Amino acid sequence: MTMNFGIGVDLGGTNLRIAAISEQGKLLEKSTTGTKVKLGRDAVIDEMTEAIKELASKFRDTHRLLGIGVGVPGIIHKATGLLRDSPNLPGWGDFPVRDEIERRLGTTVILENDANAAALGEAWLGAGQASENLCMITLGTGIGGGFVLNGRIWQGMTGMAGEIGHIVIDPGGPKCPCGSHGCAEQFASATAVVRMAREAIASGQAPELARANFDGVELNAQLVYDLAIGGDKPAQAIFQKVGWALGLLLSDLVNALNLGTYVIGGGLANGWVSFAPAMFEELHKRSFVYAATAPDDSTTSTGASTVTPINGTARTAIVRARLGSDAGLYGAARLPMMRGKARRVRASA
Amino acid sequence: MTMNFGIGVDLGGTNLRIAAISEQGKLLEKSTTGTKVKLGRDAVIDEMTEAIKELASKFRDTHRLLGIGVGVPGIIHKATGLLRDSPNLPGWGDFPVRDEIERRLGTTVILENDANAAALGEAWLGAGQASENLCMITLGTGIGGGFVLNGRIWQGMTGMAGEIGHIVIDPGGPKCPCGSHGCAEQFASATAVVRMAREAIASGQAPELARANFDGVELNAQLVYDLAIGGDKPAQAIFQKVGWALGLLLSDLVNALNLGTYVIGGGLANGWVSFAPAMFEELHKRSFVYAATAPDDSTTSTGASTVTPINGTARTAIVRARLGSDAGLYGAARLPMMRGKARRVRASA
Repeated sequence: MTMNFGIGVDLGGTNLRIAAISEQGKLLEKSTTGTKVKLGRDAVIDEMTEAIKELASKFRDTHRLLGIGVGVPGIIHKATGLLRDSPNLPGWGDFPVRDEIERRLGTTVILENDANAAALGEAWLGAGQASENLCMITLGTGIGGGFVLNGRIWQGMTGMAGEIGHIVIDPGGPKCPCGSHGCAEQFASATAVVRMAREAIASGQAPELARANFDGVELNAQLVYDLAIGGDKPAQAIFQKVGWALGLLLSDLVNALNLGTYVIGGGLANGWVSFAPAMFEELHKRSFVYAATAPDDSTTSTGASTVTPINGTARTAIVRARLGSDAGLYGAARLPMMRGKARRVRASA
Repeated sequence: MTMNFGIGVDLGGTNLRIAAISEQGKLLEKSTTGTKVKLGRDAVIDEMTEAIKELASKFRDTHRLLGIGVGVPGIIHKATGLLRDSPNLPGWGDFPVRDEIERRLGTTVILENDANAAALGEAWLGAGQASENLCMITLGTGIGGGFVLNGRIWQGMTGMAGEIGHIVIDPGGPKCPCGSHGCAEQFASATAVVRMAREAIASGQAPELARANFDGVELNAQLVYDLAIGGDKPAQAIFQKVGWALGLLLSDLVNALNLGTYVIGGGLANGWVSFAPAMFEELHKRSFVYAATAPDDSTTSTGASTVTPINGTARTAIVRARLGSDAGLYGAARLPMMRGKARRVRASA
């Protein structure tokens, strides 16, 4: 029997990753190179398409290629395949990414926002395996988001759904590059952690943070986290603020959508132990939908999956991502596998 | 050819409304009586089921009954058909509403939250006719909400989805009965308008509101609205606050879900002209997804539907509800019509 496989691409501002993944979720081969952003977009697309061709021909005799999915950072206009806006790929604004890839390959590809692809990856093989409905929250430089509803990525009318990093947490909060104020990513991203650390240093109330910064070390979220874990109160207060904001964000999402699983990933999710208690406390206080469906141990959850029905009522799982930086790669490879499938939909009435 | 029809029931705390509606959306017959809440839940269910039987037998010879849908205020546990909690039906907590109705009728019924039923009604025959994906926001004593996604009510894992009135607008805002603070319904419900009017009177800065209240007239949202329309600045400021909060709420919803249509209904929606300008202004400032998809005339929108693609890009419509208090009744009657249908799902990848 010929095994089906998909090729997934995760085109990031730093790394270009390409993988062949079987329909059963087995990684056949993976390559990672630095994205040569400075050589220009044509050079990046050239390298990507050459690697795709190589991978496709390598498995041609033993496997059947179902298609190619490409995850890109930024907003995609689904109808035209244009990359509308991407802070991580400067100069790519309104570049016809899909057409350029397809022209070189001579075949169609499926373009997807990288956060959406990551949500699909986690839903398929990661933390959301038990759930057809999932929200993924990726805490990185900003906050990315993606929904999987009835097993499929929820794209919205124009492909812009999932911008949950711009749900407003505090309307009078810090200005956000998106134009609003007090967005979630102003409190719960790596960028926000660094900003809050600078504010704490400027206040004169955070001597350990000031000392760490003074030693010529670049202030970053990892450094603040290390101090928090070491017992430094001002650093701990910053991660409590992260948890507070995530609790509010989750409260909005749980009250609105009542999904089964919310997955938290991205680099800052490594600080889970430092923000999770404040997050669950806020969520419990804020969301009566969560309070009615919370796992019994949720306030002390370690992030392990808890999609276990208790007393006949399904529970809301707030869990850590499992696939790390591969989530988007798996999700991208999954995209062509879903194209021809019968659309599975859970009865809703 | 025999015409198919459904029976819809809207069981409110004030009125019990029952209608027979054809599959083509034609109202065959409608009755409204006061809900005899004081006689107890058994008497209410008895009266409802008698009226259903009468309606069913009346059309039996000429039409085929597809089923019965019942909209109820409050949270329903879908798996068991229990009414979990309903402020408008005191004493009905954990009452097996579905079982009690089915026992008397000898047939199955579909129980649905009234705000969800209203969303389906507007999607079917009201403001959302052009859209398979819709969010309905009902501004009443509180704020009710419902989503229709891919043509069907989005119920969430346990049937509690749509509690958008408890999305947090201002985390330090007024305490909400739900346990949180600063929920949308603390700023944009009829109850909130009255509270803000009392606050304005107490501040000594709202002489017209104080006079209106002093004359022995009960302070209500209509009275505040009349003053606002008449040019009273403090009353206008209250409706601007309503608009501000709705702008923030819509911003969260548009950024997260990128739906085509958001429908605003309920009694307070009659104050549209007094809150819509502030609402659209805030929404434009807050949501880059809305800014990218707004109709050209959106800041001066009168609430007319604007689901018209312009320059190839679909537009986000924020519109007034069209079915008034009948939305839930139409939606309830629609529920049994959807049961056997092939599940239409828009391709998402």
